[in-house]
Amino acid sequence: MFNYPNNKKIKNQKTFNFTEEKSKGMSFEEEITKANNYYLANDIAHIYKKPTPIKILDVKNYNENFEKKSLITKAVFEKRSTTDYNGLYKGFYIDFEAKETVNLKFNINSNLHEHQKKHLLSIYKHGGVAFVLLNMKKYNKVFLIEINKLIEEKKSQVTIDYLIENGYEIEVNNIYLDYLKAVDEILKRRING
Amino acid sequence: MFNYPNNKKIKNQKTFNFTEEKSKGMSFEEEITKANNYYLANDIAHIYKKPTPIKILDVKNYNENFEKKSLITKAVFEKRSTTDYNGLYKGFYIDFEAKETVNLKFNINSNLHEHQKKHLLSIYKHGGVAFVLLNMKKYNKVFLIEINKLIEEKKSQVTIDYLIENGYEIEVNNIYLDYLKAVDEILKRRING
Repeated sequence: MFNYPNNKKIKNQKTFNFTEEKSKGMSFEEEITKANNYYLANDIAHIYKKPTPIKILDVKNYNENFEKKSLITKAVFEKRSTTDYNGLYKGFYIDFEAKETVNLKFNINSNLHEHQKKHLLSIYKHGGVAFVLLNMKKYNKVFLIEINKLIEEKKSQVTIDYLIENGYEIEVNNIYLDYLKAVDEILKRRING
Repeated sequence: MFNYPNNKKIKNQKTFNFTEEKSKGMSFEEEITKANNYYLANDIAHIYKKPTPIKILDVKNYNENFEKKSLITKAVFEKRSTTDYNGLYKGFYIDFEAKETVNLKFNINSNLHEHQKKHLLSIYKHGGVAFVLLNMKKYNKVFLIEINKLIEEKKSQVTIDYLIENGYEIEVNNIYLDYLKAVDEILKRRING
């Protein structure tokens, strides 16, 4: 029997199907991972998904075939204080959050936490390239939109027209989601003022 | 009863004291965290410790006071493929590993994995600032040494004299371990060629 946090009474306990629960956003995440692996393998960029922050409450150590092993038997998820991805490309610090929606518009406030917006904006101010990679599933289109552009929009709902005008559409070729092409455009504009 | 990985027989099972086990390197890690918190709070830099990568094998969902909660009941540690810390400072990508030793010399090979050395060197080649923050406990001195300097050393044991000549000694003031002062020196040299 486990000791649940605070030993409070637990209602409706059930086993969680991790694969099923995660599969919702998985294919977009998988496409980003594929791109990042391609960039790393071809020495183009170092971009990583940050591990999910977890607070470990209990670990059991044991020996198996004379090898020391550890098993975490109790842990809780911690709130992520920043974004999902960061890395290095052409000397620039890259930081972004990946989001997707089945709606016609992207709701900024319900999809991005206040602390994530603040974090991305601060990264931008410190010279990093900070953006949201946005999968507009209804249109089958992926956009990169810089955080400073995104928060300039006074309305909380971002339309596809706004994204076309202010963001960069990502070409989804047969190999991978080449979002660093859009970053190249951003860097070009930065360097040329 | 847990299902241990592979259901193999487990010998010498014992409860792991996480705090005790981690306390060995804790004070140096705490000092770095304190510095990073200071940098963040004062809008100087964004430098974070990456969460420990963990593979989740089982999660239980439950309701507590009408709130949905999750408890991880089975997970294993995964090998970190990169380094402990990364971030952004003055537009530059920062990446480092923190190490400490009670010995008179620092043994590169037993303290840094081959993949960590490769990772740091690649970060350096991509325009990032990549280094090892090294606590030489015998001397009560902390050094920052860039990865390119560290691997130039042909011997596997780095002496304090080598560190004084090729690295930067970090001033440990009463407030925090101000290692970004050394990064300033690196950036100055880079910009002035």
